[in-house]
Amino acid sequence: MTTTRTDRRERPFVMDEATAILARTPGILDAMLRGLGDGWIAANEGNNTWSPFDVVGHLIHGERPDWMPRVRIILEHGEDRAFDTFDRFAQFTASEGRTLASLLDEFATLRRDNLRDLASLRLTDADLDRRGRHPVFGIVTLRQLLATWMAHDLDHVAQISRVLARQYSSEVGPWTAYLRIISGQPG
Amino acid sequence: MTTTRTDRRERPFVMDEATAILARTPGILDAMLRGLGDGWIAANEGNNTWSPFDVVGHLIHGERPDWMPRVRIILEHGEDRAFDTFDRFAQFTASEGRTLASLLDEFATLRRDNLRDLASLRLTDADLDRRGRHPVFGIVTLRQLLATWMAHDLDHVAQISRVLARQYSSEVGPWTAYLRIISGQPG
Repeated sequence: MTTTRTDRRERPFVMDEATAILARTPGILDAMLRGLGDGWIAANEGNNTWSPFDVVGHLIHGERPDWMPRVRIILEHGEDRAFDTFDRFAQFTASEGRTLASLLDEFATLRRDNLRDLASLRLTDADLDRRGRHPVFGIVTLRQLLATWMAHDLDHVAQISRVLARQYSSEVGPWTAYLRIISGQPG
Repeated sequence: MTTTRTDRRERPFVMDEATAILARTPGILDAMLRGLGDGWIAANEGNNTWSPFDVVGHLIHGERPDWMPRVRIILEHGEDRAFDTFDRFAQFTASEGRTLASLLDEFATLRRDNLRDLASLRLTDADLDRRGRHPVFGIVTLRQLLATWMAHDLDHVAQISRVLARQYSSEVGPWTAYLRIISGQPG
């Protein structure tokens, strides 16, 4: 038992740690979704909420016009050029007629290529402080962009977990009270 | 484009579907956690919240005195005998000195064995309606117990995602506003 207990709520951004987690996401999605029945893949939380199928399409779209292009805009243009706006609904047309398996394959390939491109930039700590311009937030740093890329993945992993769990919202009966993922109580 | 759009928010409990998802959880945890640095494994959300290491220990404990013993109590005793109370903090002593890899291995083995035992019971729809007594909620059905087992897994997958993402709560800067997993906005 140690007497000094460090705060474990936050960590500073470390490139190798962030990319190690980013590299895991395709495998996490595979373990969760590949081969799952269509009813589960198409499940959602009502109205215009997203299904697991929609989420994978959204993550694919992020690999193309979003994360790495924004890295390059920061490195090449700094604050002078705002990022392009990210289309949060692109997947609804782009994924049409696709199978989930092909989306998972594509995401894995894009992610691997993007992480290779990122590594090839050999970013220094000074680079991570470089600033760009977000169309809504204004000034952001390259470090913030990369930290967000990771957190964004995990946000969608949690979302897929929630959509699947809530398929049994009624079936769990009184246990709803203990299941924050169904009750929506803050975690 | 179909004109009839079915509600995709909930599904009825189907044994083969629930066990197919339960069988995925060890692989999901592996993809998320195996080989991850100690700082991430020990990360938490402050105070007495759980780390990914704690969560895996909790899931192991569930495989032993909780889920399958409760199935058996319902089948053997019905409403006559209340379930034993589940110790939500057992993992803090049981996991002491263990490595995450050994916990992940143990969880995978226990889960596989439990799903094999469950299959060997060849439960019918009539069995799923059988009733037992929860120490807090009172009457519950076997179907509710099994649906909860699945949702409980996914609750903890979402929790691990959240604990990891929140390690970068400060590092994401203004993007917090778009990251529900960090901001805690309802999903």
